[in-house]
Amino acid sequence: MIKKKAKKGKPDVIKEITLHDLDTDYFISKNIEKIKSTVGDGMAINALSGGVDSSVVTMLGHKALGNKLRTIFVENGLMREGEPEQVYNLFKNLGVEVEIIDARNEFFAALKGITNPEEKREAITQTFYKNIFGRFVKESNANFLLQGTILTDIDETIAGIKRQHNVFEQLGIDPQKTFGYSIIEPLIRLRKDGVRKVGEALGLPAELFDRIPFPGPALAARVIGQVTPERIETVRKATAVVERLLKNSGAFQYLAILHEDRVTGMRNGKRDFGQQIEIRCWESRDARTASPTKLEFDILYQLADEIINNVPGVVSVTYNIASKPPSTIEAI
Amino acid sequence: MIKKKAKKGKPDVIKEITLHDLDTDYFISKNIEKIKSTVGDGMAINALSGGVDSSVVTMLGHKALGNKLRTIFVENGLMREGEPEQVYNLFKNLGVEVEIIDARNEFFAALKGITNPEEKREAITQTFYKNIFGRFVKESNANFLLQGTILTDIDETIAGIKRQHNVFEQLGIDPQKTFGYSIIEPLIRLRKDGVRKVGEALGLPAELFDRIPFPGPALAARVIGQVTPERIETVRKATAVVERLLKNSGAFQYLAILHEDRVTGMRNGKRDFGQQIEIRCWESRDARTASPTKLEFDILYQLADEIINNVPGVVSVTYNIASKPPSTIEAI
Repeated sequence: MIKKKAKKGKPDVIKEITLHDLDTDYFISKNIEKIKSTVGDGMAINALSGGVDSSVVTMLGHKALGNKLRTIFVENGLMREGEPEQVYNLFKNLGVEVEIIDARNEFFAALKGITNPEEKREAITQTFYKNIFGRFVKESNANFLLQGTILTDIDETIAGIKRQHNVFEQLGIDPQKTFGYSIIEPLIRLRKDGVRKVGEALGLPAELFDRIPFPGPALAARVIGQVTPERIETVRKATAVVERLLKNSGAFQYLAILHEDRVTGMRNGKRDFGQQIEIRCWESRDARTASPTKLEFDILYQLADEIINNVPGVVSVTYNIASKPPSTIEAI
Repeated sequence: MIKKKAKKGKPDVIKEITLHDLDTDYFISKNIEKIKSTVGDGMAINALSGGVDSSVVTMLGHKALGNKLRTIFVENGLMREGEPEQVYNLFKNLGVEVEIIDARNEFFAALKGITNPEEKREAITQTFYKNIFGRFVKESNANFLLQGTILTDIDETIAGIKRQHNVFEQLGIDPQKTFGYSIIEPLIRLRKDGVRKVGEALGLPAELFDRIPFPGPALAARVIGQVTPERIETVRKATAVVERLLKNSGAFQYLAILHEDRVTGMRNGKRDFGQQIEIRCWESRDARTASPTKLEFDILYQLADEIINNVPGVVSVTYNIASKPPSTIEAI
C-alpha cells in the first residue's frame, strides 16, 4: 500500500510503476507484506466486481490475509448476463469463497427517476458504500477495505473527466470519518497493463486477468437517461451480443450503449419508433488515449443484425468513430 | 399527370414505370402536353427545394407553361449551407427565374418547443402550405400546383412508415377544398432512378439530376428533439463536412443527424458533456432497401475529426451500421 497524506487538501504525486519497470514477484511479495502489516490483527473486506482490478486485489488480499479477508460480490442488478455466477465459480476454483449480496431492489430504487450521469454515479456510490457496504462493515467488524483503484482513475478524477467512486482519499475525503473504515489501494501505482501482468503472475485464469475493462457503475454507465430494470435488460442483451462477437477481435475494450433518443424504424412493414444501440470498440494501451477499432464491415453488419433481431425494441445500431480525446471510452 | 380518383377512401393502384420501361423523350413530351392541357389558360405555381424531384418538375413545368408557371424557393431556415443561392443560380443559368421567399422566422416559430417527429412534420407542412404557399397562391391567383411526388413516397405513406407532406391526394384529402388549389404530380409513376434519367434528358446539370436525396422537412428531419436555429446550425455544419468528404463515395445518400442525447467528452483536459452526430451513408437502388456503405476507416476517422474540430459542442461521432429495414434512411 502506498501512503498518501493530504497536504493542504492536495494529494501527493503518486509515482507510476510502468510496465517496463514492473517486477511482478517483487510487487506481489511487497504488497502482501504491506497488507499483512497494515491489517495486523484486524479484519479486512473487499468488494469483488469481477473486473481485473478487483480480482487482482482479491487474490493479493487472500494471499496476505486468508480468512481475515471477507470478499463480497454485490449483485446490484447492473451486471452482465450470468456475471455473478461466473465470478463466484471462478474464485471458488481458486479457493476463494465469495459472498454474494442481493441488493438489486436497493440500487434500482436509488436510481429511479435520475437521468443526470453525475447523479447516477452518486446514487450508485452512496447505495454501495453507505447502504450495502456500510451495513456489511458494521456486521463484519472489519476496519480495512481493500480497493482496486489504479493510476488512470486518479488521473481522470484530477482532470475532472470522471468522478471515480473509489478515490475518496485522493480527493481529500477521509473515508475513516465518512464511512468508518480505512482504504488500502495496492494497485494505485499501476495502469491497466501492469494490473494484468500482476494478475497473470498471481495465477488468475486468463478470463480474469485478461478481461476487458468494465466500469464501476456497471451497465448503468451504458444507459443514457433513466436506469430501470427494463432498460438495463435491453443493454445487457446488446452487451452479450457485442462481447460474444468481438471476443476474438483483440481490441482493448468493446461495449454497447443504450441511447435515450428514439429513431424511426420499420417492423412488419409498419413504422416503429424504436431505440438505438451504439457500439464502441477501442484500440488502446492504457485507456488514456484510444481510437475506434477498424472492424470488418461483415462484423459490423452482423453486430447490427443480431442486436436488432435479439434485443426487443431496438431498430438502429451505430458504431463509434470518434477517438479519445475528445471522446471518452464510455459514453457517460 | 396521372389521374387518381378516391374510391371508398382508397386510392387507385398507381402503375410503376420502371427504369427499364422508361422512354424519357416520350415521358417528357407526354407530360408537357398533359400539364399544358390541364392548366389551360390558368396559372400554375410550384415550389422548388433544389432536390431532384422538384427540379425535374420545375423544368417540365417551365417547358410546358413558360411564364404561366411561377417557381418559388421557400427559404425556411432549414436548408443546407449556401443552398438557396446555389439553387437560384443553377436555374437562372437554365433560363428559369426562381422567386425566393424568406420564411425563416415563421418556420422556427412554428417548430418552437416541438420534439415529436410527427408534430414537427405537421408544423412544417402547415407552415409551408397554409401560411407561405397559401398566401402565395392567393396573391398569384394560381390554381394549379406542380409537385414532385414519386412512387416511393406513396408506398411509404401507405405502409405508415412516413407521413409525406406532398401526398394529400393519395391520403384521400382533397387539396382543392383544403388549400384551394389542384395538385399536378407528373413523377408519381417513377422511382428515384427514373426521375434522375428524366432530369438528365431535360438537360439539367448533373448537380441537379444526380443530387443525393434530401428530405422534405430538410435539416429538421436531421435533428432529434427540438428544432432551433442553433441546433439547425450544428447539423448544417456537420452536413457540410459529410457532403464534402463523401461527395465522391458513389453512395446513394449520406447525411448527418444531431442527437438529443448528451455524451461525455474531454476538451482541454476537462470533462465536456457534449453533443453527438450520427453519420449515415447508404447503398441503395431506390431507397426501399438500403445497407450502410463500407467506407474506409481512414474516411470515417476523418469525418469524425473534422466534425469534432469544426462543429462547436460536438464531442462524439457515430456511423450507422443497421440496414433498412428495419432501419430507415433518415432517423426521424
